[in-house]
Amino acid sequence: MRHLAGRNEGIAPFRVMELMAQSRELEAQGKRIIHLEIGEPDFPPPRPVAEAGVEAIKNCPMGYTPAAGLESLRKSISDHYFRRYGVEVSPERIFLTPGASGAFVLVLALLLEAGDQVLMSDPGYPCNRNFVRLYDAEPVLIPVGPESNFHLTVEAIQNAWKDRTCGVWIASPGNPTGTIICQQQLQRIWEEVQRRAGFLLSDEIYHGLEYGRACASVLQYTQEAFVVNSFSKYFGMTGWRLGWLIVPEQAIAATTRLIQNLFISAPTHSQYAALAAFSADTMILLEQRRRRFEARGDFLYHALKRLGFGIPSRPQGAFYLYADCSRFSSNSERFCQDLLHRAGVAVTPGVDFGLRDAQTHVRFAFTTGMENLQEGIDRIRGFLQTI
Amino acid sequence: MRHLAGRNEGIAPFRVMELMAQSRELEAQGKRIIHLEIGEPDFPPPRPVAEAGVEAIKNCPMGYTPAAGLESLRKSISDHYFRRYGVEVSPERIFLTPGASGAFVLVLALLLEAGDQVLMSDPGYPCNRNFVRLYDAEPVLIPVGPESNFHLTVEAIQNAWKDRTCGVWIASPGNPTGTIICQQQLQRIWEEVQRRAGFLLSDEIYHGLEYGRACASVLQYTQEAFVVNSFSKYFGMTGWRLGWLIVPEQAIAATTRLIQNLFISAPTHSQYAALAAFSADTMILLEQRRRRFEARGDFLYHALKRLGFGIPSRPQGAFYLYADCSRFSSNSERFCQDLLHRAGVAVTPGVDFGLRDAQTHVRFAFTTGMENLQEGIDRIRGFLQTI
Repeated sequence: MRHLAGRNEGIAPFRVMELMAQSRELEAQGKRIIHLEIGEPDFPPPRPVAEAGVEAIKNCPMGYTPAAGLESLRKSISDHYFRRYGVEVSPERIFLTPGASGAFVLVLALLLEAGDQVLMSDPGYPCNRNFVRLYDAEPVLIPVGPESNFHLTVEAIQNAWKDRTCGVWIASPGNPTGTIICQQQLQRIWEEVQRRAGFLLSDEIYHGLEYGRACASVLQYTQEAFVVNSFSKYFGMTGWRLGWLIVPEQAIAATTRLIQNLFISAPTHSQYAALAAFSADTMILLEQRRRRFEARGDFLYHALKRLGFGIPSRPQGAFYLYADCSRFSSNSERFCQDLLHRAGVAVTPGVDFGLRDAQTHVRFAFTTGMENLQEGIDRIRGFLQTI
Repeated sequence: MRHLAGRNEGIAPFRVMELMAQSRELEAQGKRIIHLEIGEPDFPPPRPVAEAGVEAIKNCPMGYTPAAGLESLRKSISDHYFRRYGVEVSPERIFLTPGASGAFVLVLALLLEAGDQVLMSDPGYPCNRNFVRLYDAEPVLIPVGPESNFHLTVEAIQNAWKDRTCGVWIASPGNPTGTIICQQQLQRIWEEVQRRAGFLLSDEIYHGLEYGRACASVLQYTQEAFVVNSFSKYFGMTGWRLGWLIVPEQAIAATTRLIQNLFISAPTHSQYAALAAFSADTMILLEQRRRRFEARGDFLYHALKRLGFGIPSRPQGAFYLYADCSRFSSNSERFCQDLLHRAGVAVTPGVDFGLRDAQTHVRFAFTTGMENLQEGIDRIRGFLQTI
C-alpha cells in the first residue's frame, strides 16, 4: 500500500480510548466500573427535542437541507445570541455543521495554510491540535496554569507570536480544566490578535454549562472573530451531531462555497429537532440539569480536595475538574491504569491534554449521578490508602 | 479580517445553486417549476428505516457511538459485501462517516500531501476536485467521452501520470453521466495504479442504482483500494448523513486515530436506522424503487433523443443523463438559464462538471415522477421550437 500522508504521524491516539477499551473488558468480566472519564452528558436528549426529532422523521422532508442549514434554525440561533448575550448576529453568518467537529474542519479550511502556526493553551482538548495538523499547519502549545486560570494571556500571546503565527484558538469553558476566561482577558486577547491582523477562533461549545460567573461570548466584543458552538453539551444532543459556526460578514461567501462542497448539509432530523432546543420547556429542563451538574461538580471538588488532590478553584463550567495528583503519583497514565484496574474507577490522564504538568494531573468528568460519584470517591479513598 | 487561505480561491460555487435559488424565487412568484436538476432521490426514507430511526430516538442511548460506528452496523455492511459482491470485508476495515462527504474528507486526509496530484475524470462531480484542494493537492482532470463510456482508461492514466501523481479517483456509476465502468477496465486500472505504487479511490455511492449490467466493486479485485459508499442514494437516506469508508487492513490504525479526531462519530440515530436498511422488507422496497428509476431513465432517454439531444447510451446507473445539447446551444449555462426562465424547467449546465464539452452538455436528473418528466419534456419541446 502507498505510504500514508505525513500528517498522520503527528496524530496520537487518545490514551483514554485505550483505557475505555480496558474498562469495557473489565465490565464484560462482570466488574462494575465507575466512569469519571466520559466527556458527554449522561442525560437523554430533552423530551421536546426527542419529540421534534420523531415528528421530523415522520412528517418532514428528509432530503438535504440548504447547505448552511434550515433557515428557521439559523434564525433561532440568531435570536439565542440576542437573548443570551445581547448581540445581533444575522442568520446569514450562522452555518449548521455535522457537530462542532464539522465546524472546526470547516473554519480551519477557511483560515489555514500549510506551515501556519496557531496558538492554543496547554492543557487543552487534544483534537484541537489535530484539526490544525489536518491542514499541515502547526499547533503551538502555550503552557498555562492556575496563575492565569488555565487560559491564555495577552503576554503569553505576545511572547509566542512569530512570523508564521496566524491566529489564536481559545476555548472557554475549557477542557480539561472547566475554567472560564474572564471578560477583560477575552477582550484584551481580541485586541491583541486584531493588532497583529490574526484571526481569533473562540470555541464556545460548553457555554450554558457555567456555575457562578457567566461566560461571555467573544461576539460581545467583536463581529470579526470566528465562533464555534454545539448542540451536544448544554443542549444534551450529543449523538445528533449538530454544531454551528459563526463567521464575520466578509467570510460568508467563502464559507458558503466550502460548506456546500465539504458536507452538503448537516443531518436533517437533527436540525428539525434542534428547533425545539430553544423552547421554553427545554430551557426549564436544561436549567435543572445545569444545577445538577453544578451540585455534582461541587461535591466532587470538595471530596477530591479532602482526599489530597490539588484543585485551584471550584468548578466554573463544562463538566470537568482538572486535579493535581502529584501527592500520589508523578506518572498520570500509570496512576489512571492502577486506579482502573485496582479500584474500578476510570479517569483521564493529563498526558492526553498536553505537556505542562501532564504527568501530575488527571481529569475527572462529572457526567454521572451523585451515587456513582460517591462510590467513585469511596473507591479512590480506598485505593489511595494502598499506595 | 485576515485574508482567507489560498485554497478558497480555487473553490468555485456550483452554477446549479444559483439556478436553484432562481427557481425558488420563481416558485415564490407562483410559477410551477419542473425540477430535473436535483441530485437526491425523491422517495421518502424506506418505512422500516424511518421506523427504526423513531425507535432509536425513543429507546436507544443517544450519546456518541464508537468512533468507527456501531459494531452491529459495521457487521451488517460487511455481510452486505459478501452477499452482494461475494467478497469478505472484515468489519474492522469499515468506518461509518457523516455522509460520503465525511468519508472523502477522511480518506484524503489519510492519503494526500500538499502538491500531490490526483487523477480523475472530466466530466465528474465537482466536489471531488474540491475535496482534493482541501489538502492543497491538485486534481488533474482527464477529459473522457463516449469513446470510453465517460470513464478513465489505463492509457489515459499512463499519459497523465507525473512525478507528483499519487493516485486515481474513479466513480462508477458516474455523476453526471450515470455510466458504469466495465469490470475489465476497473481491474486493469487497479493493476496500473498498483504498478505505480499509487492509491485507488473508488467512489461507489450510486451502487445499487444500476439498470442492466451490474456494478462491480473494486473490492472484487483487490483489498488494497479505498472505497466510499453511502446510505443517501440507493438506500434513500439522504438527509440522515451517513456514509462509509473501507480501507485496507494496514490503514485501520491510522484511520481510527483520524476519525476519532475529525468526527468523534457519525449520527447515532442514523446508524440505528441504517441497521434496517438491509432488512428483507427494505430490500423489496428498494428493488421496486430501482425499477421505477429505470423506467424513468428509459422514458427520459427516448424522449430527449427524439427532441434532438445526443445521448450515447441508455441510462446505466445513478439517476442522471448527460445530454449533448449542441444542436440547440453552445453555451450550456445560458441554455439552462433560458430553459428555466422561459419554460420553467431546471436542469444543470455541463460547466458545473468540468471543461470537456461542458458548454454543449447538460445533466438531467430523473429524481421526479413520470408525470413531471412528461410535463418537463413537453415544456422543453415547446421551448426548443422558440429558439
